[in-house]
Amino acid sequence: MVKRIGVLTSGGDAPGMNAAIRAVTRVATNIGLEVYGIYDGYRGMVDGKIKQLTRESVSDILDRGGTILGSARLPEFKDIEVRKKAIEQLDKFGIEAVVVIGGDGSYRGALALTDMGVNCIGLPGTIDNDIASTDETIGFSTALNTVVDAMDKLRDTSSSHHRCSVVEVMGNRCGDLALFSGLSSGAEIVITSETGFDESEVLDRLREFDVVKKKNHALVIISEKITDVEIFARKVSQFTGFSGRATILGHVQRGGSPTPGDRVLASRMGEKAVDLLMQGVGGQCVGIQRGEIVGVPIEEALNMPSKSRKDLQNLFDRLV
Amino acid sequence: MVKRIGVLTSGGDAPGMNAAIRAVTRVATNIGLEVYGIYDGYRGMVDGKIKQLTRESVSDILDRGGTILGSARLPEFKDIEVRKKAIEQLDKFGIEAVVVIGGDGSYRGALALTDMGVNCIGLPGTIDNDIASTDETIGFSTALNTVVDAMDKLRDTSSSHHRCSVVEVMGNRCGDLALFSGLSSGAEIVITSETGFDESEVLDRLREFDVVKKKNHALVIISEKITDVEIFARKVSQFTGFSGRATILGHVQRGGSPTPGDRVLASRMGEKAVDLLMQGVGGQCVGIQRGEIVGVPIEEALNMPSKSRKDLQNLFDRLV
Amino acid sequence: MVKRIGVLTSGGDAPGMNAAIRAVTRVATNIGLEVYGIYDGYRGMVDGKIKQLTRESVSDILDRGGTILGSARLPEFKDIEVRKKAIEQLDKFGIEAVVVIGGDGSYRGALALTDMGVNCIGLPGTIDNDIASTDETIGFSTALNTVVDAMDKLRDTSSSHHRCSVVEVMGNRCGDLALFSGLSSGAEIVITSETGFDESEVLDRLREFDVVKKKNHALVIISEKITDVEIFARKVSQFTGFSGRATILGHVQRGGSPTPGDRVLASRMGEKAVDLLMQGVGGQCVGIQRGEIVGVPIEEALNMPSKSRKDLQNLFDRLV
Amino acid sequence: MVKRIGVLTSGGDAPGMNAAIRAVTRVATNIGLEVYGIYDGYRGMVDGKIKQLTRESVSDILDRGGTILGSARLPEFKDIEVRKKAIEQLDKFGIEAVVVIGGDGSYRGALALTDMGVNCIGLPGTIDNDIASTDETIGFSTALNTVVDAMDKLRDTSSSHHRCSVVEVMGNRCGDLALFSGLSSGAEIVITSETGFDESEVLDRLREFDVVKKKNHALVIISEKITDVEIFARKVSQFTGFSGRATILGHVQRGGSPTPGDRVLASRMGEKAVDLLMQGVGGQCVGIQRGEIVGVPIEEALNMPSKSRKDLQNLFDRLV
Repeated sequence: MVKRIGVLTSGGDAPGMNAAIRAVTRVATNIGLEVYGIYDGYRGMVDGKIKQLTRESVSDILDRGGTILGSARLPEFKDIEVRKKAIEQLDKFGIEAVVVIGGDGSYRGALALTDMGVNCIGLPGTIDNDIASTDETIGFSTALNTVVDAMDKLRDTSSSHHRCSVVEVMGNRCGDLALFSGLSSGAEIVITSETGFDESEVLDRLREFDVVKKKNHALVIISEKITDVEIFARKVSQFTGFSGRATILGHVQRGGSPTPGDRVLASRMGEKAVDLLMQGVGGQCVGIQRGEIVGVPIEEALNMPSKSRKDLQNLFDRLV
Repeated sequence: MVKRIGVLTSGGDAPGMNAAIRAVTRVATNIGLEVYGIYDGYRGMVDGKIKQLTRESVSDILDRGGTILGSARLPEFKDIEVRKKAIEQLDKFGIEAVVVIGGDGSYRGALALTDMGVNCIGLPGTIDNDIASTDETIGFSTALNTVVDAMDKLRDTSSSHHRCSVVEVMGNRCGDLALFSGLSSGAEIVITSETGFDESEVLDRLREFDVVKKKNHALVIISEKITDVEIFARKVSQFTGFSGRATILGHVQRGGSPTPGDRVLASRMGEKAVDLLMQGVGGQCVGIQRGEIVGVPIEEALNMPSKSRKDLQNLFDRLV
Repeated sequence: MVKRIGVLTSGGDAPGMNAAIRAVTRVATNIGLEVYGIYDGYRGMVDGKIKQLTRESVSDILDRGGTILGSARLPEFKDIEVRKKAIEQLDKFGIEAVVVIGGDGSYRGALALTDMGVNCIGLPGTIDNDIASTDETIGFSTALNTVVDAMDKLRDTSSSHHRCSVVEVMGNRCGDLALFSGLSSGAEIVITSETGFDESEVLDRLREFDVVKKKNHALVIISEKITDVEIFARKVSQFTGFSGRATILGHVQRGGSPTPGDRVLASRMGEKAVDLLMQGVGGQCVGIQRGEIVGVPIEEALNMPSKSRKDLQNLFDRLV
Repeated sequence: MVKRIGVLTSGGDAPGMNAAIRAVTRVATNIGLEVYGIYDGYRGMVDGKIKQLTRESVSDILDRGGTILGSARLPEFKDIEVRKKAIEQLDKFGIEAVVVIGGDGSYRGALALTDMGVNCIGLPGTIDNDIASTDETIGFSTALNTVVDAMDKLRDTSSSHHRCSVVEVMGNRCGDLALFSGLSSGAEIVITSETGFDESEVLDRLREFDVVKKKNHALVIISEKITDVEIFARKVSQFTGFSGRATILGHVQRGGSPTPGDRVLASRMGEKAVDLLMQGVGGQCVGIQRGEIVGVPIEEALNMPSKSRKDLQNLFDRLV
């Protein structure tokens, strides 16, 4: 049975990653395992940047954003020679299994390592909520809070100036951050890869808000990677009665003290990861599905179709 | 088919009630219904404190705590004569069906009115999360945020003074607010009606945290109605190495701008309530179960056993 | 003696403007004056968008961002014919004196109106803190909070990725928002019009933070209108060991519930404005100087040199 | 000239103490001094709980509440024998001068040590703003924010229930926290040691708010140590039309991430303390007076009369 496990964070960081690291460490040490932190993601695994974690090393991190282990991307990890070096390092430290906290890309590495004999479990750590095998990712709740907080502020100033705020939010082709923040902030229009973006139709609707509905401001939320919001805001000024202003929220969305929701979710998922490893399971990722914490084979997870939000998009339209 | 509906808030107020009022009003007016706000709960129904709500009257309330309709308790509503007066008022205003936002007590009134011919749908608005027919109530997420925010502050000052903070949180016999805030704040001990309270055992554990684990502070969270936290804090000072300090969070827990989670939940539930009324359904309450918005007969809901949190209590113990 | 006064907000909006409107209205009505709200700044004065304000109309606005009166810029107000139309409207409503809440530009209008016989008092409402006649403007404290909150979040994520965040903040050529947020967030470098911007010198210092001081992240704050932060962030990636990322905080800085500091400052200044008008004074602006609320002739105020922050810049350098 | 200094925090902790510790450490080490942290206040000085602080040991504490050095009260420090032991420890570590961050009581110890040959400088670290020699103490701004945040929440729920919230805030006989939070939250009544407390007169005013002004809620803020707010709230229920509810904010007021205001103030004061020590000055405390950072002889500071807030109390009355 496993005696010593590693834990790492990989890809873009997300609030709640520290809560997950803490849960993995506490749950594992409480049943007698040793836990090692692998720093800077897979790169640190290859380079042997590895140190033991104790009960105390994860004190006071539950409420901290970012990740105490650091994170990085390492595309070369696809190369089997690179992975062999990583496994040499794990062997050197006696690490028999690893918990990988990150996004889809990190899962592929976890699966490849499992196939090479080191059981790995993936935890969904990303603000984008773009992982099909879980209803919610660690970090999404906090990022949503941050976005809505910004929207509440923009609404103050927009309504003082008959302005249309055009706001770009993250999501990496997943529209959830845009749609949920639109529902939460009472936005007038939400644009995601699922809704599509028909510029002239959106401008028409804005004109209607201005002329027919007599709104003194409008809030348009657009998922990243769909259009250039600066250019679109200029068109709003040109073709509607509103003065258009673009805001790109940017990396602020990745930071901040995790919400209670993210802290609890990360703790539950961290517990599950350790339990799976103790059962000799590898190559799975943890998700929450319909309220329940589950393990899903990574292969299966990577092939799941992304969730449709037609119902919530429909609700959004009924609330405007 | 229903043409005109009423909406009221009843019992203790909860953040997100306004979001629910807004959703009911917007969804209903968008399909051609007329919506009337009934002020100060069932009391206002009896007294005829009733005014029409429009699209515009619910603008800018999505992010506001409290309830624009006011709330009150009216124990006399159990009396059929009182309810008859209420129905007279509804008839006078032409209100054919009502959405009632509140707790268990409010549901009973909604059921009684339905039995008398006015279809009512209940929405779970309470910070206590003490309604068995829904996994989460409107207001719980916000109250949890408020409590955890206070815990984060108490931890700062406790750890500066080798202090044990003993904090009483709300919940009305439901331990969720205590347990979830304990998980989220890294508390040392959580006491709910489900865990029970063995005073000398708790003092023993505190001594262990002090002497064996060398902790420089401790956080104990206790559900309301279990013990007098002032007296218990004094015992902590007397019988352990910590200086005990009691904090009763009180009504602050009921206020605040709702979290995005509460805003979305309230919006989804408000939509469901209108849809049920349009289908001619009454005497049901709306809940979220395993991620899905459902309608449950109130009679059934009131008889459901309360949820056990053994699994999360167990997780809590594994994380300390 | 004056019986009826007007109040308007002009220029960019700032948190605390509502608190000032409330103070003007309450203080004035409590001594028997009538108060009229002039909507959308000087434009509304010209167009006669004017309505009476009562004690009640300013309830519940103390904690709201933005301005309930709306704001706008009206460059044509420099034209005496336009101002004559404005005075006709004031006459029509019987408004004998006006409180103007806004920035430098708004003061000029207030002075011009005073010269034409309508006593006006200016209040400094702008987040930029760029008014020489006051140590602090209404809105600066809140904007500073918003900026520092964003910095705290960026630091989380920057330190997880060996990243250099390059952040553009507002200030309209006044460096206070940059400098105070730099001091408050422990930034590595602050660039204002007073410090100047020597690109290669800044890149040198960043290399030193990376190589010599072994910092795992760096935060550079730049006042708006100094350089293109996107381009500069790319140079950071190219010429230092950090990965540079630009963030433009944008209009979020103008919104949000005002801090207690802004609420109190706005209330004190609103009181002073009414007192000055009651003494028959016009053409002055209110400021806080060395802790004291004072009236300063606008002409004098507009010619004051801007404050130097050499001492705080020096403190910043001693803290890095 | 001094080569090695100590720094300690004493008395009740306050947000911003860490910012002051950081400033003392950074400013001192940047000019070549060595800095030692003395843990748990004067007690740690006596017990020799002393460790070196470096540039790095104060990284990442600027935004943290509490004090990394811990704090304690040690009444026995009045005893010269106890102080002699303390000085022995300082000698042992080669500490020639000390910065003491705390309240009035801490200043006495600092003065006594100075008289015995170890130059000490006091910094005003307390949320109570009860130190006459400074216009503002480190921690006051943050505590005020916390209180106003709670008031904003209480107002939500009070106005939903025709309730009168009676809130006890800290201040240790100084009414500033009550008065400033009253101004900031639009409270109906503020009671401090300066206003005095005439119970029946306050009940009269509440009745007037209810019956004459038709207010649907009322907020009464009372400084600690004036009356029992639980008992008073019951009288409100008994003798007015409002339902009275007491809230004792408690130790939550001492915690939390410091506001930018407190971070900057603490940094400026920490700088001044080091500068004074380098000039060979001892027995002084640092204050901010009319915007300027000054050193004041402790003896003089302890004899200053407390500030009157008649003007702000008057403003409060004009705003209700």
